[in-house]
Amino acid sequence: MNKTRVAVLGATGMIGQRFVQMLEGHPYFEIEGLYASERSDGKRLRDVLKVRDYPYKEETLDLKIEAMDLKRISKNARVALSGIPSDLAGKTETELAEGGVAVFTNAGAHRMDRNVSILIPEVNPTHIESVRDQATFKDGGFIVTNANCSSTGIAIPLAAIRDAYGLEFVSVSTYQALSGAGYPGVPSLDAVGNVIPFINNEEEKMETEIAKMLGTYENKEFNFAKFRVLANCARVPVIDGHLESLVIKTKTAPSVDELAETLRKFRGEPQTLKLPGAPDDPIMVRSEMNRPQPALDALAGTPERAKGMSVTVGRIRKNDEYHKLFVLSHNTLRGGAGGSILNAEFAKAKGLL
Amino acid sequence: MNKTRVAVLGATGMIGQRFVQMLEGHPYFEIEGLYASERSDGKRLRDVLKVRDYPYKEETLDLKIEAMDLKRISKNARVALSGIPSDLAGKTETELAEGGVAVFTNAGAHRMDRNVSILIPEVNPTHIESVRDQATFKDGGFIVTNANCSSTGIAIPLAAIRDAYGLEFVSVSTYQALSGAGYPGVPSLDAVGNVIPFINNEEEKMETEIAKMLGTYENKEFNFAKFRVLANCARVPVIDGHLESLVIKTKTAPSVDELAETLRKFRGEPQTLKLPGAPDDPIMVRSEMNRPQPALDALAGTPERAKGMSVTVGRIRKNDEYHKLFVLSHNTLRGGAGGSILNAEFAKAKGLL
Amino acid sequence: MNKTRVAVLGATGMIGQRFVQMLEGHPYFEIEGLYASERSDGKRLRDVLKVRDYPYKEETLDLKIEAMDLKRISKNARVALSGIPSDLAGKTETELAEGGVAVFTNAGAHRMDRNVSILIPEVNPTHIESVRDQATFKDGGFIVTNANCSSTGIAIPLAAIRDAYGLEFVSVSTYQALSGAGYPGVPSLDAVGNVIPFINNEEEKMETEIAKMLGTYENKEFNFAKFRVLANCARVPVIDGHLESLVIKTKTAPSVDELAETLRKFRGEPQTLKLPGAPDDPIMVRSEMNRPQPALDALAGTPERAKGMSVTVGRIRKNDEYHKLFVLSHNTLRGGAGGSILNAEFAKAKGLL
Amino acid sequence: MNKTRVAVLGATGMIGQRFVQMLEGHPYFEIEGLYASERSDGKRLRDVLKVRDYPYKEETLDLKIEAMDLKRISKNARVALSGIPSDLAGKTETELAEGGVAVFTNAGAHRMDRNVSILIPEVNPTHIESVRDQATFKDGGFIVTNANCSSTGIAIPLAAIRDAYGLEFVSVSTYQALSGAGYPGVPSLDAVGNVIPFINNEEEKMETEIAKMLGTYENKEFNFAKFRVLANCARVPVIDGHLESLVIKTKTAPSVDELAETLRKFRGEPQTLKLPGAPDDPIMVRSEMNRPQPALDALAGTPERAKGMSVTVGRIRKNDEYHKLFVLSHNTLRGGAGGSILNAEFAKAKGLL
Repeated sequence: MNKTRVAVLGATGMIGQRFVQMLEGHPYFEIEGLYASERSDGKRLRDVLKVRDYPYKEETLDLKIEAMDLKRISKNARVALSGIPSDLAGKTETELAEGGVAVFTNAGAHRMDRNVSILIPEVNPTHIESVRDQATFKDGGFIVTNANCSSTGIAIPLAAIRDAYGLEFVSVSTYQALSGAGYPGVPSLDAVGNVIPFINNEEEKMETEIAKMLGTYENKEFNFAKFRVLANCARVPVIDGHLESLVIKTKTAPSVDELAETLRKFRGEPQTLKLPGAPDDPIMVRSEMNRPQPALDALAGTPERAKGMSVTVGRIRKNDEYHKLFVLSHNTLRGGAGGSILNAEFAKAKGLL
Repeated sequence: MNKTRVAVLGATGMIGQRFVQMLEGHPYFEIEGLYASERSDGKRLRDVLKVRDYPYKEETLDLKIEAMDLKRISKNARVALSGIPSDLAGKTETELAEGGVAVFTNAGAHRMDRNVSILIPEVNPTHIESVRDQATFKDGGFIVTNANCSSTGIAIPLAAIRDAYGLEFVSVSTYQALSGAGYPGVPSLDAVGNVIPFINNEEEKMETEIAKMLGTYENKEFNFAKFRVLANCARVPVIDGHLESLVIKTKTAPSVDELAETLRKFRGEPQTLKLPGAPDDPIMVRSEMNRPQPALDALAGTPERAKGMSVTVGRIRKNDEYHKLFVLSHNTLRGGAGGSILNAEFAKAKGLL
Repeated sequence: MNKTRVAVLGATGMIGQRFVQMLEGHPYFEIEGLYASERSDGKRLRDVLKVRDYPYKEETLDLKIEAMDLKRISKNARVALSGIPSDLAGKTETELAEGGVAVFTNAGAHRMDRNVSILIPEVNPTHIESVRDQATFKDGGFIVTNANCSSTGIAIPLAAIRDAYGLEFVSVSTYQALSGAGYPGVPSLDAVGNVIPFINNEEEKMETEIAKMLGTYENKEFNFAKFRVLANCARVPVIDGHLESLVIKTKTAPSVDELAETLRKFRGEPQTLKLPGAPDDPIMVRSEMNRPQPALDALAGTPERAKGMSVTVGRIRKNDEYHKLFVLSHNTLRGGAGGSILNAEFAKAKGLL
Repeated sequence: MNKTRVAVLGATGMIGQRFVQMLEGHPYFEIEGLYASERSDGKRLRDVLKVRDYPYKEETLDLKIEAMDLKRISKNARVALSGIPSDLAGKTETELAEGGVAVFTNAGAHRMDRNVSILIPEVNPTHIESVRDQATFKDGGFIVTNANCSSTGIAIPLAAIRDAYGLEFVSVSTYQALSGAGYPGVPSLDAVGNVIPFINNEEEKMETEIAKMLGTYENKEFNFAKFRVLANCARVPVIDGHLESLVIKTKTAPSVDELAETLRKFRGEPQTLKLPGAPDDPIMVRSEMNRPQPALDALAGTPERAKGMSVTVGRIRKNDEYHKLFVLSHNTLRGGAGGSILNAEFAKAKGLL
């Protein structure tokens, strides 16, 4: 099988470099080019390396980064994986879609667009059909977004719970990692030994994105889920891995063991389709009393290619009609680059590429 | 005025050393002795110093620590300030009360005892009357506890809100500082770059202590408040200052500005009595969009003697009938040693010493 | 006595805000204005606060910051305290001196200028006379620099050692705090859980500045000290306080106790003159086996106004003709703003203002 | 080939668990049993997991840990890999050697014993012959130690430099990771945002171990190398990876490029023998101006099995007859468990097992 040519947008940033990591040896995709701003034109990946924990191949580290050239990308690449800033992403991604490119983006610019889905294939696989309703689809171009990193982590267990028991109320507090702010991101003088209880626009995103993802797409319209989501977001001095505490109220209240079992058994289309980036267990449930922890669990996921793609749930407790639990997900893998790549793999499996 | 003689129990620990800090130059109290386990007998305070941010006087640093001798304490001290571990505190504090000593304790052992209050004088000043119903009171001995550090921080704003608007529901997630675990406490290999979503028994304490403190004491019985409290507790790599996110539902829903004003104006008996450790503002409300932060706000409080005794509230938001806010308090001052000392000052003002 | 009017340059930065801290209630100086770039014009200090550990007065926090206006400063201020970036400092400080302003600067731009001293009044008090040889001096304007933060810390004990025993060789490795890089400075993704063994141009500065400071000023020329200094500089995840390890070789080798005593007894002109910012002990020698530590010792110094102005030495060891020791100094107080202010106080005492 | 049966001593600790990591799928060795103190008897590895960054196989995590039983180990295991505390190691390891077991130990107890080598097979391969002079060797039992973690990292480049240019003087300052102190090790209240300039006995170890390793073994005696080593040791808030700054004086002074080339080309017997745990490059030399960094370089080493076994050198500079450089090594892999395993592989290749 010929591999699909993929352009990586934003290759000097954390998300861009996670794309490159996940594309090494990918069975479906090959890198067409690494792109960033003019300023980085000509640099090699090794000169701007941000990722701490992945040993890139030497030839990958030698890849050149180029200034973005939309015409050239439209001509040479079937797919664009985008990790560029949202203010830039709006126009850029639209132009690429108009140029016939399938854009899988981590940026927020198009998430609330009319026929653009926020896709997690385990959660809302049918939403991918919205691409057919995008004006550019006739020429092969379309946009699929993935959710904000803090929304992604909880969307998967919330979907599993909603399917089994119905959902009425969600209160979530986040303990978000520094890599979620990109690079240079949070100054160390603010971060070390501190917590910052504010991330610009993050709570609003969580409250609307969850509702869009757990809603339906019918008659070319997204209908948002109705249960309430209340979010408090804070940044903690952790490199990778968003931890989130949840208080939820379900329609029918399962026991702690039933809820754990439901989460543990949850599987979605990526698992059925055996997509390369799909983790065997979308949700890992840990029974230890002090897990999940970012330092120990952020990279959960098997097989090797799906490291950081499992969401880990722990400390499930019940107070009458409420459940409490902690959820951890890797914010630049499952909640970032990995999410976009899984979406691209899913699109490929659906014959859209 | 002759100063009241005070024994400090647990002088090698974080809380014990905060007691010593707050007793330097105290207008009501003077140190009778510093006590700890046999193992530390004979050491000077400077040899076992834990507090990072307070410059003790040289003569204070030279104070000797002695092995606990309950008979001697009962004879020489009118008051004991206790920062010893809960398992040890149960018996020790009972014996001291039986010996005629007024015990103000940070330990959890007696918090749920029949006639023992969990006292925050701004929140539940009438609860101090429960000491009169303790069997040892006739000889001058009694026990007053202060709340767990994570309960204290939110109890003050919750009391202000309950008084003004009624309270129906509280969901709280904590970002707790390392000093809350004492010393040696959390191993650095677990703490650095990590969050630990578990603190033994902490959530249970919060859920019951808040209810006891915000309830009533009538006919020699504590009646617990009825609104629901749901707690998720986690430890973050911060030295001092517990941050807590709150989602609350009040009976009558004020605007954000009204709620801020209510909190800002809140005063209690310690302020009326001008107790030395009482902060001018029990609750400071910050309007900056990214506060309170442990690094910047943990030591809030004026005058100088009340540093770390104000609770800081920020980011008040409203979603329909719910409010969201962040609360920060200094866990070893207001939520620890400072709380016990304020209780002792309050008892003194009430003629109980 | 009328207070001297002082302009603070760079008031949005760490050093600028330390200037403001030390000017609160200063007996010699009063703030003429706070200045920064155009971008910050009109902001209040509270909007751009960086310092974590100092409780500014409310009226200080309300001070307005203005865009720099050199003419106005020349007209209204006798002294400028400068904490602006070196690239900007070169021209700005020259113009102020030409305008008759006495400039005390933390910037590096003029440190190697012909008649400009790098002044630590305990170390090289006679160097201040170089201002008389500056062209602008006839109109009252001149420039005095203080050393780089990592040079300052060790210059004081090295001067004491050189005076007593002679110096032949110094090898220094630094453990430098994040605040030394200013704000935003080091990205948290680089800092948390890491050490960065590189600070641009820092080692070169240390090797030349020490030699200039410990040299002489005669016949309008600086003669550099001859002993060798070899520096290795690294950044560690600490907020304030530069720790430095030293290996030194003296001409006559004292015992460990003699060396400690020499350091402990060291006093300079600021102590004789009882300058307000002069610490009682320029060098504190600690005998505990695990000190000095940034978290415990950075703020060493009495009286209150001289907090952070003492340098702390510990772990003095001897291997034959070599001594090893650790030195800690507060990089934005003694090694930054406090150094400039002490220089200004010294100039005042010398009748130069 | 039948695999050699290996007992792991100290399996609840950091070093013990790194042994287990490196034994997964090892071509020469298989685990006979995991041993620790009575207290941990019956626990599974997953219950006491300390290592953050290695994904153990599920069946490995299920391995049971047992109380140490020296008779049983002597009967069932040919090799013991020891990560037990030094005070316990002295007697235990002697008994095992007497029982015919080949002990490869990370503990310090026997490092200075008469016929016991401190072995790094790239540095002093001939020292392994000392086992033949141990009394227990006739029955197959012997002891081989590896160096202290901070000694190992620099011993390899120092050996390369000594071989090429001679060595006269070494001044080393360490920036040591928290994992070097074991678990629970350094309390987080001491570690976060701090540097501790003291590690018990560490400087003495470095100064003598380097001399023993770089010396010779002749006529059943170790002759220590003569050049001077001066060490300053400090602990920094980093999880894994000891950084060390070096100032060295060689007999003939190469250029920076020559020195880099010498280090880059250095190979030892493990490379010639292609031992499984031998890194292709014992020393990696980086040319970036801000490396090596613990966060980026601690796990250097190819192939996969040798991750964390390369030492990384960077920032080589020259001041006349002195060179300055930074060295980084993984303290629990190359400087801990990996060192012992490489020694065991080397012994196997030499026919000693």
